[in-house]
Amino acid sequence: MTATTLVILGASGDLTQRLLMPALYRLHALGLTPGLRIVGYAKEAWSREYFERHIHKALQAFAPDFKPAQWNRFRRQLDYVGGELQADQLAALKDKLSPASMFYLALPPPLFGMAATALGEAGFSNSPRGGWRRLVVEKPFGTDLASAEALREQMHTHWEEEQILRIDHFLGKETTQNLMVFRFANRFLEPIWNTQHIAQVQITYAETLGVEQRAAYYDKAGALRDMLQNHLMQLFSLTAMEPPSSWDAEVLRDHKVEVLRSVVPITAKTVNQHAVRGQYRAGTLGRKKLVGYRSEPGIKRGSDTETFAALRLEVDNWRWRGVPFYLRSGKRLASNYSEIAVQFREVPGPIPHAVHAGNNWMIFRIRPIECMDLLVTAKQPGVKLAGRPVTLAAPYATPNDREFSAYEQLLMDALGGDRSNFLRFDEVEWAWKVLTPVLEAWEKGTPDFYPSGSEGPETQARLLDPDHHWRSIARNGDG
Amino acid sequence: MTATTLVILGASGDLTQRLLMPALYRLHALGLTPGLRIVGYAKEAWSREYFERHIHKALQAFAPDFKPAQWNRFRRQLDYVGGELQADQLAALKDKLSPASMFYLALPPPLFGMAATALGEAGFSNSPRGGWRRLVVEKPFGTDLASAEALREQMHTHWEEEQILRIDHFLGKETTQNLMVFRFANRFLEPIWNTQHIAQVQITYAETLGVEQRAAYYDKAGALRDMLQNHLMQLFSLTAMEPPSSWDAEVLRDHKVEVLRSVVPITAKTVNQHAVRGQYRAGTLGRKKLVGYRSEPGIKRGSDTETFAALRLEVDNWRWRGVPFYLRSGKRLASNYSEIAVQFREVPGPIPHAVHAGNNWMIFRIRPIECMDLLVTAKQPGVKLAGRPVTLAAPYATPNDREFSAYEQLLMDALGGDRSNFLRFDEVEWAWKVLTPVLEAWEKGTPDFYPSGSEGPETQARLLDPDHHWRSIARNGDG
Repeated sequence: MTATTLVILGASGDLTQRLLMPALYRLHALGLTPGLRIVGYAKEAWSREYFERHIHKALQAFAPDFKPAQWNRFRRQLDYVGGELQADQLAALKDKLSPASMFYLALPPPLFGMAATALGEAGFSNSPRGGWRRLVVEKPFGTDLASAEALREQMHTHWEEEQILRIDHFLGKETTQNLMVFRFANRFLEPIWNTQHIAQVQITYAETLGVEQRAAYYDKAGALRDMLQNHLMQLFSLTAMEPPSSWDAEVLRDHKVEVLRSVVPITAKTVNQHAVRGQYRAGTLGRKKLVGYRSEPGIKRGSDTETFAALRLEVDNWRWRGVPFYLRSGKRLASNYSEIAVQFREVPGPIPHAVHAGNNWMIFRIRPIECMDLLVTAKQPGVKLAGRPVTLAAPYATPNDREFSAYEQLLMDALGGDRSNFLRFDEVEWAWKVLTPVLEAWEKGTPDFYPSGSEGPETQARLLDPDHHWRSIARNGDG
Repeated sequence: MTATTLVILGASGDLTQRLLMPALYRLHALGLTPGLRIVGYAKEAWSREYFERHIHKALQAFAPDFKPAQWNRFRRQLDYVGGELQADQLAALKDKLSPASMFYLALPPPLFGMAATALGEAGFSNSPRGGWRRLVVEKPFGTDLASAEALREQMHTHWEEEQILRIDHFLGKETTQNLMVFRFANRFLEPIWNTQHIAQVQITYAETLGVEQRAAYYDKAGALRDMLQNHLMQLFSLTAMEPPSSWDAEVLRDHKVEVLRSVVPITAKTVNQHAVRGQYRAGTLGRKKLVGYRSEPGIKRGSDTETFAALRLEVDNWRWRGVPFYLRSGKRLASNYSEIAVQFREVPGPIPHAVHAGNNWMIFRIRPIECMDLLVTAKQPGVKLAGRPVTLAAPYATPNDREFSAYEQLLMDALGGDRSNFLRFDEVEWAWKVLTPVLEAWEKGTPDFYPSGSEGPETQARLLDPDHHWRSIARNGDG
């Protein structure tokens, strides 16, 4: 890596101390970021030393293998500039930059546009000869189609699309990246990855957590914006995309966008066949008693924000017509459980009477552990010719593996200029387009309630084909 | 089960005491053979009591969970008649038979024809009204095509083909039966089980044992007759057969025969491209020093009998043209290892540079443990986009399963009248037809020598396509 500068805007904030700095520290410890300078920028008039102490504390709390000796090397990379998000104050950064410099917007979403503009006005979006300038933006990118488009316009005033790296940290997860390797580096899967052989796809992200410290943001966003529009739509497009003709970032993202463009549009009339929303009531998880969403601190009494959202998407192309994709995510569910589950159709030929054959699934599980499972029917040992379900299983990682967190992965990609795992604007745009009718319908009415610790609202079953069932959250998660 | 009589001809012999009686004892203990009478018949003029004591000793030695109380119930099923294989002496069995009676030829192969004839002359092949008569024949069925056809003629004088159950105990193995369930009860495998997606198939049966107590028989037979013509050809036809339209015994066997009929004929000219023979020399296995085959007790000095045989078979039909099937079996090899290994072709699309993608195999392993393995390429955890081999694995049986030995399985099938797992004559016939040119060529010359404890003769590599490699016996077996 040539001399590179990473400027973090919002360096005094939570994202910086909890996720970015621990990731940068580990990459440094592994020797993966030689020559990287990290400049914090925030409105606080901190000194360089104060910032160092602040980060020191953060790493002691959040870096899993913090070592004083390592810290003494890492701290030399750090610098700090205090100022507002205005061009004249940002100008103080000028002398800190390298020919290769990246600006990371670790800011509240309403400030993204302003920050991008101010950086542009300061002249920082112009790549110098032999160098580059990049802008990393956190999610959410807009709160609906119109605001996303407005934000894009604002950013594009000074920045080219190719310079903008939009983070969706699910794309930095190992299992997400494995999905493409597994699909396209093995001969056995691709020929059967289509409507002729696949019956349904279920993508689930279930968590036991409630709204926690994020009440103010979450009560405005809801599950659809917080999880479905970005993370689950990404898993969906990676699952459904056509094989790429190359592993070039633009080709990969072209293919993902093509999936989103092929989704059968949901209309105001069909919203209830395609979407279900829920909100958690009081309940119990294990022995723990939990309050309902509307009683959580910081949540508006009588809030109608959804804490659970489920979608039925249909893809109208040669590969997928006839295969429902079910996506759902929710808080305060029965367990922490996340997976992409693909069920193959029943076999067309005769099988012996005692062999049930509807159990053929390919599963990419993210939580509670990352693994790959192929569920099959095998012979039941014994003299009778009977079948039973068997799982061909492999963990994704072994104890000897060096796994990387999503932020470590994405920071490496961003510094290295690989855009594959960042969202191009049209991905964001088409995800909003798919969901706009649902967002509009959900502006009125009330979600379906479900007890904390349950599988979610019973109404989610109405999205399914008659012979389909939601996979069990309690049984497949960490209990 | 209605009252049934099983007559074992050759009841004083090794097969009876080592395999048949322990199997019958266990089936009895499990309550699976109520009302079964077992009548031993042999030339020894034993009393019923003497036979009982003989079997008692055998079960104490060979039945894994022998219990005196159980024995006291089992012994009541036993009876004995002494006599030669002549109709007038066999007539003494008449009063012992039930309407449903089965004759099991646990005899040396040269006596099969004579026994079948004598039983027929005694009138025992005529099924009485409301009952049946069946004849179970051990392998080998002939020593070449001509002798097999002669034996068939002799048996068919008195017995219908439907009455004759030819044993190949590999067909009673759990993994063999699972092969069909796994192939046809899961959607994912059948669509890719063809030349478009499969590169090669390797069927291996490797053992560390030498010729042991079977010198007299083995030195005449050799590996090709002992293992390939029957057991491995059966695994081959089950692997390659078309999906059956029903699980009827005749349909299943029709499909298996069709595979054998589709094998590209080996000719005198092409034998060396399709067959390799080997013979073990002295060597070591672990720390054990082993003598060469020609120095084994009971083996003719300078014998040219093969203790290793490998074949390359090609199937000329829509499904398989272009896929070599490699079959091999041998004694005194590096480990006990037996499996059907199917390699998928490399993917046609681009994959990232650091992802090697030739590792996609479906494995049905028989030894050292019964299991199903799907070898795939997955992402290597880490920031670089690289791949690595991963195995999705499932054991065939779990500690809670009640597994059945091949003889238990086949005895139940035979008593229940299910012919699916027995060889129809045309299966035997076509297996001999495929191998006749090899047998003829091997009447002259000398096998290629290999050290005991090795992977077999190096010359076996000449059967392979240039980009194929034999899977490692040492690495995949029990070491």
